[in-house]
Amino acid sequence: MNNVKMRQALESFFNEDIGDSDLTSETIFAAEESTSGTYTAKAPGIVCGLPVVTAGYKWFDPAVTVHPHVHEGDRVGAGERIMTVSGPVRSLLGAERVLLNLLQRMSGIATMTGKAAEIVKGQHARVCDTRKTTPGLRMFEKYAVTIGGGFNHRFGLYDAVMIKDNHIAYAGSIGKAVQKVRARVGHTVKIEVETTTIDEVREAVQAKADIIMFDNCTPEEIRKLIPEVPDGIVTEASGGIDLTNLESYADCGVDYISLGCLTHSVRALDISFNLKTAVKSV
Amino acid sequence: MNNVKMRQALESFFNEDIGDSDLTSETIFAAEESTSGTYTAKAPGIVCGLPVVTAGYKWFDPAVTVHPHVHEGDRVGAGERIMTVSGPVRSLLGAERVLLNLLQRMSGIATMTGKAAEIVKGQHARVCDTRKTTPGLRMFEKYAVTIGGGFNHRFGLYDAVMIKDNHIAYAGSIGKAVQKVRARVGHTVKIEVETTTIDEVREAVQAKADIIMFDNCTPEEIRKLIPEVPDGIVTEASGGIDLTNLESYADCGVDYISLGCLTHSVRALDISFNLKTAVKSV
Amino acid sequence: MNNVKMRQALESFFNEDIGDSDLTSETIFAAEESTSGTYTAKAPGIVCGLPVVTAGYKWFDPAVTVHPHVHEGDRVGAGERIMTVSGPVRSLLGAERVLLNLLQRMSGIATMTGKAAEIVKGQHARVCDTRKTTPGLRMFEKYAVTIGGGFNHRFGLYDAVMIKDNHIAYAGSIGKAVQKVRARVGHTVKIEVETTTIDEVREAVQAKADIIMFDNCTPEEIRKLIPEVPDGIVTEASGGIDLTNLESYADCGVDYISLGCLTHSVRALDISFNLKTAVKSV
Amino acid sequence: MNNVKMRQALESFFNEDIGDSDLTSETIFAAEESTSGTYTAKAPGIVCGLPVVTAGYKWFDPAVTVHPHVHEGDRVGAGERIMTVSGPVRSLLGAERVLLNLLQRMSGIATMTGKAAEIVKGQHARVCDTRKTTPGLRMFEKYAVTIGGGFNHRFGLYDAVMIKDNHIAYAGSIGKAVQKVRARVGHTVKIEVETTTIDEVREAVQAKADIIMFDNCTPEEIRKLIPEVPDGIVTEASGGIDLTNLESYADCGVDYISLGCLTHSVRALDISFNLKTAVKSV
Amino acid sequence: MNNVKMRQALESFFNEDIGDSDLTSETIFAAEESTSGTYTAKAPGIVCGLPVVTAGYKWFDPAVTVHPHVHEGDRVGAGERIMTVSGPVRSLLGAERVLLNLLQRMSGIATMTGKAAEIVKGQHARVCDTRKTTPGLRMFEKYAVTIGGGFNHRFGLYDAVMIKDNHIAYAGSIGKAVQKVRARVGHTVKIEVETTTIDEVREAVQAKADIIMFDNCTPEEIRKLIPEVPDGIVTEASGGIDLTNLESYADCGVDYISLGCLTHSVRALDISFNLKTAVKSV
Amino acid sequence: MNNVKMRQALESFFNEDIGDSDLTSETIFAAEESTSGTYTAKAPGIVCGLPVVTAGYKWFDPAVTVHPHVHEGDRVGAGERIMTVSGPVRSLLGAERVLLNLLQRMSGIATMTGKAAEIVKGQHARVCDTRKTTPGLRMFEKYAVTIGGGFNHRFGLYDAVMIKDNHIAYAGSIGKAVQKVRARVGHTVKIEVETTTIDEVREAVQAKADIIMFDNCTPEEIRKLIPEVPDGIVTEASGGIDLTNLESYADCGVDYISLGCLTHSVRALDISFNLKTAVKSV
Repeated sequence: MNNVKMRQALESFFNEDIGDSDLTSETIFAAEESTSGTYTAKAPGIVCGLPVVTAGYKWFDPAVTVHPHVHEGDRVGAGERIMTVSGPVRSLLGAERVLLNLLQRMSGIATMTGKAAEIVKGQHARVCDTRKTTPGLRMFEKYAVTIGGGFNHRFGLYDAVMIKDNHIAYAGSIGKAVQKVRARVGHTVKIEVETTTIDEVREAVQAKADIIMFDNCTPEEIRKLIPEVPDGIVTEASGGIDLTNLESYADCGVDYISLGCLTHSVRALDISFNLKTAVKSV
Repeated sequence: MNNVKMRQALESFFNEDIGDSDLTSETIFAAEESTSGTYTAKAPGIVCGLPVVTAGYKWFDPAVTVHPHVHEGDRVGAGERIMTVSGPVRSLLGAERVLLNLLQRMSGIATMTGKAAEIVKGQHARVCDTRKTTPGLRMFEKYAVTIGGGFNHRFGLYDAVMIKDNHIAYAGSIGKAVQKVRARVGHTVKIEVETTTIDEVREAVQAKADIIMFDNCTPEEIRKLIPEVPDGIVTEASGGIDLTNLESYADCGVDYISLGCLTHSVRALDISFNLKTAVKSV
Repeated sequence: MNNVKMRQALESFFNEDIGDSDLTSETIFAAEESTSGTYTAKAPGIVCGLPVVTAGYKWFDPAVTVHPHVHEGDRVGAGERIMTVSGPVRSLLGAERVLLNLLQRMSGIATMTGKAAEIVKGQHARVCDTRKTTPGLRMFEKYAVTIGGGFNHRFGLYDAVMIKDNHIAYAGSIGKAVQKVRARVGHTVKIEVETTTIDEVREAVQAKADIIMFDNCTPEEIRKLIPEVPDGIVTEASGGIDLTNLESYADCGVDYISLGCLTHSVRALDISFNLKTAVKSV
Repeated sequence: MNNVKMRQALESFFNEDIGDSDLTSETIFAAEESTSGTYTAKAPGIVCGLPVVTAGYKWFDPAVTVHPHVHEGDRVGAGERIMTVSGPVRSLLGAERVLLNLLQRMSGIATMTGKAAEIVKGQHARVCDTRKTTPGLRMFEKYAVTIGGGFNHRFGLYDAVMIKDNHIAYAGSIGKAVQKVRARVGHTVKIEVETTTIDEVREAVQAKADIIMFDNCTPEEIRKLIPEVPDGIVTEASGGIDLTNLESYADCGVDYISLGCLTHSVRALDISFNLKTAVKSV
Repeated sequence: MNNVKMRQALESFFNEDIGDSDLTSETIFAAEESTSGTYTAKAPGIVCGLPVVTAGYKWFDPAVTVHPHVHEGDRVGAGERIMTVSGPVRSLLGAERVLLNLLQRMSGIATMTGKAAEIVKGQHARVCDTRKTTPGLRMFEKYAVTIGGGFNHRFGLYDAVMIKDNHIAYAGSIGKAVQKVRARVGHTVKIEVETTTIDEVREAVQAKADIIMFDNCTPEEIRKLIPEVPDGIVTEASGGIDLTNLESYADCGVDYISLGCLTHSVRALDISFNLKTAVKSV
Repeated sequence: MNNVKMRQALESFFNEDIGDSDLTSETIFAAEESTSGTYTAKAPGIVCGLPVVTAGYKWFDPAVTVHPHVHEGDRVGAGERIMTVSGPVRSLLGAERVLLNLLQRMSGIATMTGKAAEIVKGQHARVCDTRKTTPGLRMFEKYAVTIGGGFNHRFGLYDAVMIKDNHIAYAGSIGKAVQKVRARVGHTVKIEVETTTIDEVREAVQAKADIIMFDNCTPEEIRKLIPEVPDGIVTEASGGIDLTNLESYADCGVDYISLGCLTHSVRALDISFNLKTAVKSV
């Protein structure tokens, strides 16, 4: 991840939550009161976001130190400690919710991706994400997919060409659409074509697409389409696939399976943060 | 919602997705090609985000016009049209993914909140959200909760005081914590105190907290705590509540039930966008 | 105060004053020339802004060190030293005007608030500010009010409801206006109602407003209105009150007295900055 | 004024006041309710800020129209109407406080500058401002000074050289300081030198300063210094001058008199905003 | 190009040039004075930047209208009119320098690219750019390359992999470097490998690089390397190539020739802007 | 240069090049791998930008250290080392292109300015720049001109008045234009007037312009105009002057010669960056 961009994003997230001040902690605690606290998993999953949390505390208040108990991408069980942070109480509590929201969300994505990667393990296909990410968080969410064992599809409209049904309809045919693109786009850009029938697949092969996507096809349909695609052209299955039917696609011969659910329907990993003092004060 | 802030957020979301250009549409379509397209629900739910989508298209390209077929907050069935947009193909496709991601997410939140509101309907309790929102999207997500029939808890650390276990432990007692806050915070700010036992509830009552929250209590426990709280102090149940056990809390006497799941574990409402031309070209 | 937001504000203030370069200091002094300088009060008052100045120098140039001679909120006499700063001459002079402008303004607000707090001392009423702040400086100015011994009214349109004459006129009555608000606003938000007659006060009481404001009423009028307001509803006097007539409101029974003059008509506290070297060079 | 910069400033001011939403107006009024309202002076003064208010409403909501009843820089009496605005109630009230704060502050500056200009009228000297402006508002405040009949001193450290006592002490002498500057600064930049004694004035004249400032000198002292300064070098009196002693400086022969009080100790002009409907609803 | 990003860039460019105000035009012209002016080429070249200038005027002042006399990418001769703009004098002159600087620079790039494209015309090779662009202007400069008839290499470190000598040295070999990348990078990303010897080319072929770059090779050397590269792998010549030796590379069999000079050593196309009135006033 | 502004510019440049991540280095290198690398001139020239590169690495990654081998403004020969940087490989390569693009461009400007300064050396005239800079880089480019031995003309429309033919035509005469400006502009601002004939020069002298510019005049023409200009008014030659004809202007009596080519048609100084490891790995 780009550290400069990460810092700017964290700053805007802190401002969103804190506004002009933390009314509670700033009135109860003095600036010099310090303590430590621990992030603990309350459910099993894959931890993702440690570099974000570490950088977040450092930028929020350089007086805070972070000691991770696990590595980025490690699996943790319920009740397992993730990291301990020490520093001014005001800073520990002021940054808590933003960093916890990010950590839980990124770990949730990594955990779901981990399940998907587990399902296709040992098979030919790889699991990848889509552009169905949360606006403003694409960098964080796509990173979480890789930590969970998945791969990234294009990051935006700017880094790869994807010719969909709407484009094809307008251009007249797959061949014409690819030709138009190739006449203007540079050699570092891959061209992916969306197909649904064997005729479209053949047309895409003839147009020398770099990637052929089978849109909303069943594993059986894909099995019949794969032989049309020569070596050197990557294939991708997309549309209507989630953890419940992923297995059936894993060995149908396709190279990549893209899952929108990895980022558009995330279940945050439950993680708690407790100050040491809460105990001490008993 | 604040329109100025909304526009700034949308601009950053468009930049995230488009980067320097839409490689596909800008090479296939000419600037002057225009058409129309339709957003259609693929699953039943509550539509939320129409003003955002409308404003988004207007700022992206004033040449695009938006015709909604439903009202904000309406329930739609699978297959029902949500809105039709017309304008330059490049703009319709360039803005599509960002606006769809927002619309799906906001509608997902409104739909889940709608289910929660349905569950407590006719009972005393109201459903509300938490600060467990997606970083950068709090304004959008909290708005979606209200469209779904829920209420907003505080927006950040700046608009209400919430004295939690960690704060109490440090201050020595609920009474001392509230006293410290009241000595410095103005009269427009409400003070909420987190409690778990009957002694804590009594202490919070004595300290004249504005809101008393029962943290991780069962409905039965809450039933016993409620009589301790005089009229004029609002009560809230929080912790470990989701759609599966919400009903049991609905008539236990509590005023508000806060649900983190409304925003931290959203399931996007499935919505598709199809250009008219895709059909025409058959 | 939110440190992230404070840094961003200071950066924009430095850019406003320095532009592309400090033409004078950058041509006269070499980067390695260092010295120290002292901030001295030229009039008596309450010092406010030390954390801002300290953070400002640190962000402007980490090589600058700041040694305060007084504490935030201390009263100083004319001629009393406030703080000494040491570091590169270019940085001491480059940041001087921005930090001095902030320090003088914040100290001016704290000093005036201090006078107001002194006037009501020992009486029931507390002094508070309004939203009549300088655009872009609300966080700094509201903080200065608290340092001077005053309290903060709401920070903006987002953290409390204030139903004014215009709102009431539209809604038809105070009761209808409060009802509309309560039907949509969450339980952490207080509702304040502006009143001018005994009928309006009674209507506000019946509507269970959290705060009742007496707008442009004399102390005598307020004395007659107060008995209408039951315990548990906070009262506020507002409109046309400044340091000259504040005393007459202090014991009329009202809880809060809001003063627009604290922030809209500030007299900066006179503070000078002198480099040690200016003397040495004689 | 730069319109691009003005819009960006206004957007940040609106966000400061509105945050995520206007809790009051958005819950009481529907989006389609419209009315008109009037800005009225409650004290006599010079109106300044009409272009800002006009642009502010336009950017906030293009549906709002603004009809001024006076011209920028006009003198108004107490009770005189300044402008009438029409449009959605939500927008009229949502933008009110920000625009009123700016209008009152800018008119306050113009009014005070107008008094100063009146005092020196018919004399040789012109009145000008300083860099003692409110951080973030320099463009607005310096513009208000010109509307009031004053002149602008340099806008920042970037557009003119000002050699002060601290600079001179370091450089060794006025001559050496000017020489250092001239060796590096371009021909479009003026060099001003701060002096306090006749020897310093002579040294500055010899060094061919473009402007000579008499720092903290009495009118009598200045009368004696002026003859030392040849035609072609501009003179300026500065330090400890305000409306109470300005007259004594007006005819001492100096060209410009700079007044920090014009911007660092502003008294806002009292202006009210009333919706037409408030009356109608009676 | 992304219009949202373009507008934000233009706003920062206007602020850079105008600062707080245009001292000259705002004092000489009244807001209501209008006229028209013409952009005229003073040297032959390819015009590039018309959409930028059109959008720039529109955002600067909607009252300005732009009438182009040529199309984007057209060749113009010295003295040929490019476009006529009409509107307020202040706006025509206030936006002039920024838009002229962009237009001249972009046209300069397009013109140089046009010469390069002319040189390779009819040959196999295509001309492309590099990342040696002006910081902050990459989007504008890469667009200008396409208007001149060239192709874009990758836009940044984020949209394609380029394994250079430094990377290879670290990884141990080309094979290992490619393997590391492929284990983590998604299927939409192309991998380019920099080579200088026949062994490296063979290694890159074996590693199935998508693109093989011949770094600092002569046309003769490339002729010998090309046969090693199978169909389906794109080739690129880079390093030390400019308009003087480009022709010798055009038919050596390489697919793309990248030229840093297109953007790092631009000669602006000379274009003048003259107000109609300057003539009228004679 | 303003360090705050410099950092903000560098951050946006890094984001432009890196986007969401450096796909190559982040997949090949581990975060803990460190090395050093050297910047070496590949052509003779004047080095400019060392403070920018040093600050750039520090902000990009504080773990990087920079050791310059030359001073800012030093002349280097081809093959001469400029500086050595040490730190994490990812950071050295991630920041490389942005810093190299700036260093090459700024050194290119300083080198060309150095040539111009060399040409006028020993003569009366000084060389200066114009506003024909690259949008977004004016601060960097104008600084580079001073490092090369040139002087800065005004930085924008805000720091000096320049009355051109278009302004004069509108105002009616030079006298009237200067009068209008002087009636509103402060005493710290210089007024420059563009002239082309002896009548205009005389009019400008009579109007007491601070600077008189001879627009598109030959050295011979200027020689005849100079005697019209009294001491105390600065003169400037502008229009159509570059390194090929500069010498003929050097001793025609004019004070300043402005060269647009210094910034609008820059040839980057060729500088390479090589990691130590590339060698080690052999």
